[in-house]
Amino acid sequence: MPIVRVRVMLKPSLLDSAGRTVLGSLHKLGFSEVDQARIGKVVELHLTEYDEDRVREMCAKLLTNPVIEDFEIEALP
Amino acid sequence: MPIVRVRVMLKPSLLDSAGRTVLGSLHKLGFSEVDQARIGKVVELHLTEYDEDRVREMCAKLLTNPVIEDFEIEALP
Repeated sequence: MPIVRVRVMLKPSLLDSAGRTVLGSLHKLGFSEVDQARIGKVVELHLTEYDEDRVREMCAKLLTNPVIEDFEIEALP
Repeated sequence: MPIVRVRVMLKPSLLDSAGRTVLGSLHKLGFSEVDQARIGKVVELHLTEYDEDRVREMCAKLLTNPVIEDFEIEALP
């Protein structure tokens, strides 16, 4: 059964406050090598049949908010 | 600057209620080819220096809950 991962991130121009908070906490824990942190979500779909256009349609209709989010589709081998 | 993605998913044995809800909504929208949906998060880190052991430490200390979550680290080329 094909598996597809959709990764959804806030557009780079938008302030990611959850990411900022994580960055601050990592610095406090001594992980000073972290320069930037951004948080997104990933939706893993098990499909009976993979059609990228259909997955794009799912993203447009339900999985993402195209005003503020970008997404990438990755079909697992 | 190295970029690392940490993907965090609920352990497969645990009920992912957000994923269930997304699955139901996709079916209602006519996407009957979706058999399973699971939701996770992704943390994208920009690092001045990449050391996988350090990133594993970040996961253990802050980014994940090892009791209920699995994670995968992917260093972007």
